Amino acid sequence: MKKINFLFGIHNHQPVGNFEHILEEAYQRAYRPFFDVFENHRVKMTVHFSGWLLEWLARNHPEYIEKLRSFVHERRLEIATGGYYEPIIPVIPEKDRIEQIVRLSRLIEELFDTEPTGMWLAERVWEPSVTKSLAEAGVKYAVVDDNHFRWAGLFDDELNGYYVTEEDGRTLNVFPISKRLRYLIPFEPPEATLNHLLLHASVEGGNAQVMFDDGEKFGVWPQTYSHVYEKGWLEDFFQAIENTEWVKTLTFKEYLEKYPPKGRVYLPISSYLEMTEWALPSKARKEFEELLEELNKSGEFERLSMFLKGGMWRSFLAKYTESNNMHKKMLRVSRLLSRVEDPPEEAKKRYLMAQANDAYWHGVFGGLYLPHLRDAVYTNLVKAESLLNLSPSVEVEDLDCDGFEEVLISSKKFNLYFDPHYGGRLFELDVKKPSMNLLNNLTRRYEPYHDKLQEALTEEELRAAGKAKTIHDVVLTREKGLENLIAYDWYERYALIDHFFGEWTTLEGFSKCRYPEQGDFVNQPYQYSVDAKRLLVKLWRAGHVWVGSEWIPISVEKEIFPENERIRVIYTITNLWNKPIDVWFGIENNVNLLAPESQGRYYIADGRNLGSLKNFGSITGKQFGVVDEYRKVCFIFESEREMEHWYFPIYTVSYSEGGFEKVYQGSSLTSHLRLHLSPKKPVEISFKIALEFVWC
Amino acid sequence: MKKINFLFGIHNHQPVGNFEHILEEAYQRAYRPFFDVFENHRVKMTVHFSGWLLEWLARNHPEYIEKLRSFVHERRLEIATGGYYEPIIPVIPEKDRIEQIVRLSRLIEELFDTEPTGMWLAERVWEPSVTKSLAEAGVKYAVVDDNHFRWAGLFDDELNGYYVTEEDGRTLNVFPISKRLRYLIPFEPPEATLNHLLLHASVEGGNAQVMFDDGEKFGVWPQTYSHVYEKGWLEDFFQAIENTEWVKTLTFKEYLEKYPPKGRVYLPISSYLEMTEWALPSKARKEFEELLEELNKSGEFERLSMFLKGGMWRSFLAKYTESNNMHKKMLRVSRLLSRVEDPPEEAKKRYLMAQANDAYWHGVFGGLYLPHLRDAVYTNLVKAESLLNLSPSVEVEDLDCDGFEEVLISSKKFNLYFDPHYGGRLFELDVKKPSMNLLNNLTRRYEPYHDKLQEALTEEELRAAGKAKTIHDVVLTREKGLENLIAYDWYERYALIDHFFGEWTTLEGFSKCRYPEQGDFVNQPYQYSVDAKRLLVKLWRAGHVWVGSEWIPISVEKEIFPENERIRVIYTITNLWNKPIDVWFGIENNVNLLAPESQGRYYIADGRNLGSLKNFGSITGKQFGVVDEYRKVCFIFESEREMEHWYFPIYTVSYSEGGFEKVYQGSSLTSHLRLHLSPKKPVEISFKIALEFVWC
Repeated sequence: MKKINFLFGIHNHQPVGNFEHILEEAYQRAYRPFFDVFENHRVKMTVHFSGWLLEWLARNHPEYIEKLRSFVHERRLEIATGGYYEPIIPVIPEKDRIEQIVRLSRLIEELFDTEPTGMWLAERVWEPSVTKSLAEAGVKYAVVDDNHFRWAGLFDDELNGYYVTEEDGRTLNVFPISKRLRYLIPFEPPEATLNHLLLHASVEGGNAQVMFDDGEKFGVWPQTYSHVYEKGWLEDFFQAIENTEWVKTLTFKEYLEKYPPKGRVYLPISSYLEMTEWALPSKARKEFEELLEELNKSGEFERLSMFLKGGMWRSFLAKYTESNNMHKKMLRVSRLLSRVEDPPEEAKKRYLMAQANDAYWHGVFGGLYLPHLRDAVYTNLVKAESLLNLSPSVEVEDLDCDGFEEVLISSKKFNLYFDPHYGGRLFELDVKKPSMNLLNNLTRRYEPYHDKLQEALTEEELRAAGKAKTIHDVVLTREKGLENLIAYDWYERYALIDHFFGEWTTLEGFSKCRYPEQGDFVNQPYQYSVDAKRLLVKLWRAGHVWVGSEWIPISVEKEIFPENERIRVIYTITNLWNKPIDVWFGIENNVNLLAPESQGRYYIADGRNLGSLKNFGSITGKQFGVVDEYRKVCFIFESEREMEHWYFPIYTVSYSEGGFEKVYQGSSLTSHLRLHLSPKKPVEISFKIALEFVWC
Repeated sequence: MKKINFLFGIHNHQPVGNFEHILEEAYQRAYRPFFDVFENHRVKMTVHFSGWLLEWLARNHPEYIEKLRSFVHERRLEIATGGYYEPIIPVIPEKDRIEQIVRLSRLIEELFDTEPTGMWLAERVWEPSVTKSLAEAGVKYAVVDDNHFRWAGLFDDELNGYYVTEEDGRTLNVFPISKRLRYLIPFEPPEATLNHLLLHASVEGGNAQVMFDDGEKFGVWPQTYSHVYEKGWLEDFFQAIENTEWVKTLTFKEYLEKYPPKGRVYLPISSYLEMTEWALPSKARKEFEELLEELNKSGEFERLSMFLKGGMWRSFLAKYTESNNMHKKMLRVSRLLSRVEDPPEEAKKRYLMAQANDAYWHGVFGGLYLPHLRDAVYTNLVKAESLLNLSPSVEVEDLDCDGFEEVLISSKKFNLYFDPHYGGRLFELDVKKPSMNLLNNLTRRYEPYHDKLQEALTEEELRAAGKAKTIHDVVLTREKGLENLIAYDWYERYALIDHFFGEWTTLEGFSKCRYPEQGDFVNQPYQYSVDAKRLLVKLWRAGHVWVGSEWIPISVEKEIFPENERIRVIYTITNLWNKPIDVWFGIENNVNLLAPESQGRYYIADGRNLGSLKNFGSITGKQFGVVDEYRKVCFIFESEREMEHWYFPIYTVSYSEGGFEKVYQGSSLTSHLRLHLSPKKPVEISFKIALEFVWC
């Protein structure tokens, strides 16, 4: 009789910064009930928890840990390690790869009294250099996708076990997860899994088929709780497996000890196929998705799939400035930490927490589009940096690795990041207490899935359809009418953005990027100089503004420095033409205080509460901004003269496991005024930015 | 008027270990005449020489260096750096990447009085980790292929300049070489290049198109000398460029200083498309090549090309054991060097020379199929190791990174590498004086191009066709009838391979792998033990042999140790069945002394010269083997009893720039005899292997 080994693993993870109630719900709907069912069956499996979640479970549900430990002692359950905070391993510094893994391994030893030898690789993001890092962290095997192997030129019938890979003379065993099983479990009847296993069974019985996927598929994903537990899918599944004599469940570790590798392999940079779609620039992503759809329809996909591939995870950093900025800030804090002798453990921990992958990318989960996840990254990095107690400084360096120098002013109270090359803008404003980046906004970009907004169904509409489907099959939406929120920004939504408006500009039009920009200042290069002693930066550009049909030379200069706990900003605008002109000038600041529904967060003008950050409006006054009473932070523009101030919320429309949703990404605050500019006569606009709530 | 910058570079390279006359010919037919033409035109360009070639040029043609230096001083020529011995950068240890580059940069500074800032990346084999190594070696830019960028999701109209990439916070500028230009130059009329450039010209004039390719295309490749020089293609080309006002030639360095990057990018693992075909396992390669042909015919290739890709360079290491063995030996010597304090410069240099890429892979050039290139790798590595004067030792370690342990016996005179897992074979036999690996053979494998042997033309036949074609268009052969040499080995061609022959085995059949193997010893696992003091390894297997229709249990044990400057081998064969049996047992050793035409290299039996290593035959005697009078080395099997010895040359049929060719890859020497095995009664076969010519 032919036989086969079935290696089954699940990976349970919650992003650093996720809400408590979401963790509890995931526990009640997936993590707990899964093992309640497992308990009653003679099957073996492997489980991975990311460190942050495991800590939370140990704190909140020690009985759960106790139960899992008993499975481990009965040799029915293997616990796999991974990066403690689930970082994308290839894009963090090498020493931290090891640190992250060793920390989780230590926690596992402590909680489960077992030494993990296998590793869950976050999002299966593989690069060859992972091999060496994992080997050095004591990892014996990692689990990746079958397409990692297929892209190396191996065929399905060669993927019945594990292979050995190597880097710099260090080896690692790698198991291929069957994509077919990922799509069958838990969506199709158990027989479908058995049929698949039968195809790979052999007479000598040494083959293995591997399933390792998100534990949240078993209860948290839409429709799955009812399907997996209430309707008994998991019970049936385990029963089917244990009743099938020719299928043997083993932990990965057991299989590794019992069977030799199938061969040597070198895996290219990979993740699962969907990730390679998401990581592509939008235009390429759209082409790729259309191509895949065509090939699937024509039945040609299978034949081509070995040679078809989208982008790689790192491309998210090129695609989303916001992702790159977090990543490069993380690398900067890494350098700062390595310069300090024996940094405080809290600083190291905060830094490692900031490597959690979720906020850095975006696919079918919210990820980068979720402000609270980005906020967790910034909070942890600013906190880590603050704990190092560095002296105030001015740095001129290519901080975001775009080939141009940026200017960073660090005072005791805040960090100001300027990008001279791109409008001389302020693109990060860290307040050290509370630790956060006030400019944690997100630019509105085209995403290829926006084209499917029209066909999206609400959950109620879907429920009518009945059956649990995989997330990849259905287009859901959390609410109707989101298409009306779609707008794409032609410049990035940061601060100190210098506008010259055309006459027919309206607040409504401006908020949708439908307005006439008359100047060439918003995203063009500024020159700059710094004064390290005064923590001052001066940025200037000799640019142009359309006035009527004339392209008028105008210079804009802005000088920024800390003053009495505030940020002093002095603009000087000069008409370089030989005739007087009238212009409409505006300074735009986009600020994100998160939680716009909360009562303690509101717009303010000359001391008056203008209400929720979701509001939309215009006000005239000398002081204007946003306040967060909880975190005790604000962003108030204090001018010496009356100005008009526009404000509106920035919403993105993104797709995640719950479907399309609108997400508040900050508020745009634009202070503007009409200027009459005589030839060669500089006009000054001076204001301060207050950041401390004590003042508000 | 629209304008464009044309950045033109050539890369001149000769493999370490290549023959002197080939270097001189390349100089006379390409390197020299190219710059003779260049001299008379007002164009700028960039050139790269690998270090070993540059050394040779400086030694043999100082007037050439002098001439190039004058171009550099006139700011018409930029010299690019690279790895000194042209290693594949991502697959050598990180510190050596830097060492290789810094060494070549130093030589360039010395010879040309200029500090190189740009780098030619060998075979454009890119992995993300290259970024950091290059940045640390002081490199500002690297030149790669356009498809590196296309595979990152960028479109052709975005490839008009350079991008910035990053790893671990270090940045590097990367230029895309236009594949179109690589195919136009020097094969199509100059106008074709101008037409291509025009497509990319722009009003502001900041765009660039990049050509950087092998200098050997200008005179060394078949037909090109006559085309490029005698018929004046290059003269016409430079003239066309200098007479075209809207085309400006710049060195890469000048362009970099003058124009900003087009953006940020992350490049996946890549090389040129053809390399990704070659690197695939043969079955996948064949499918990929057929697919590409179909897509090219149907016109769909362009649309799909962004998402179509073959394998990566590292896969050569999985595909060819011989390549992997050299690579892992190189890494081993790296570890040895790092353990020794202040190793001799000669050892370091030999080690770096052994990283030269050419011998490690195979595409349209001979590469791995050329024994003298592999020999250069082994010679340099054995030499480097010898210079460290290490003590004799026995190591048990996974030396080839296949997941199984190997045994290495190092004496003062030789290294013996055993693979217990695979037939208990001896797979490397290094003689320390002269420094070489006697088992530098190559197994005969199926290559997808073998299917085209029938349609191959000789050069004469091609010449009738007239026009210079790119190497990718034509199937050439150096001689007719090579299809008769095609044979594929079912086991790897090393030594101490244990055969049990079926009755109808013939020398002819055996030489083509068409014979009945009755045992399961050739490639199956052996157990082993070592005695470090005696430098002894014992390998044994309880296996089976078909005798008639019975699957008889038999054990084979072999004990190997050095004895009086020879290798003593004692076989013990035991019939584990309860009845006597007769078997035909043979021990196969494949040995490569190179240069089979040479008079000083021959087969020898009991002191008698049996002639050229290309011979084929059978002889009976007590002593049998091969001799190399020049290197003063031999491989002589000295038995106490008369045995029959088969010998034949191993030829591969491979494809290279000159077309199909047969290559001698060593001689198979099989010493065999009939044995009557009584039940449970061990039979001993004892012999020595002599390696020193003094004895012969």
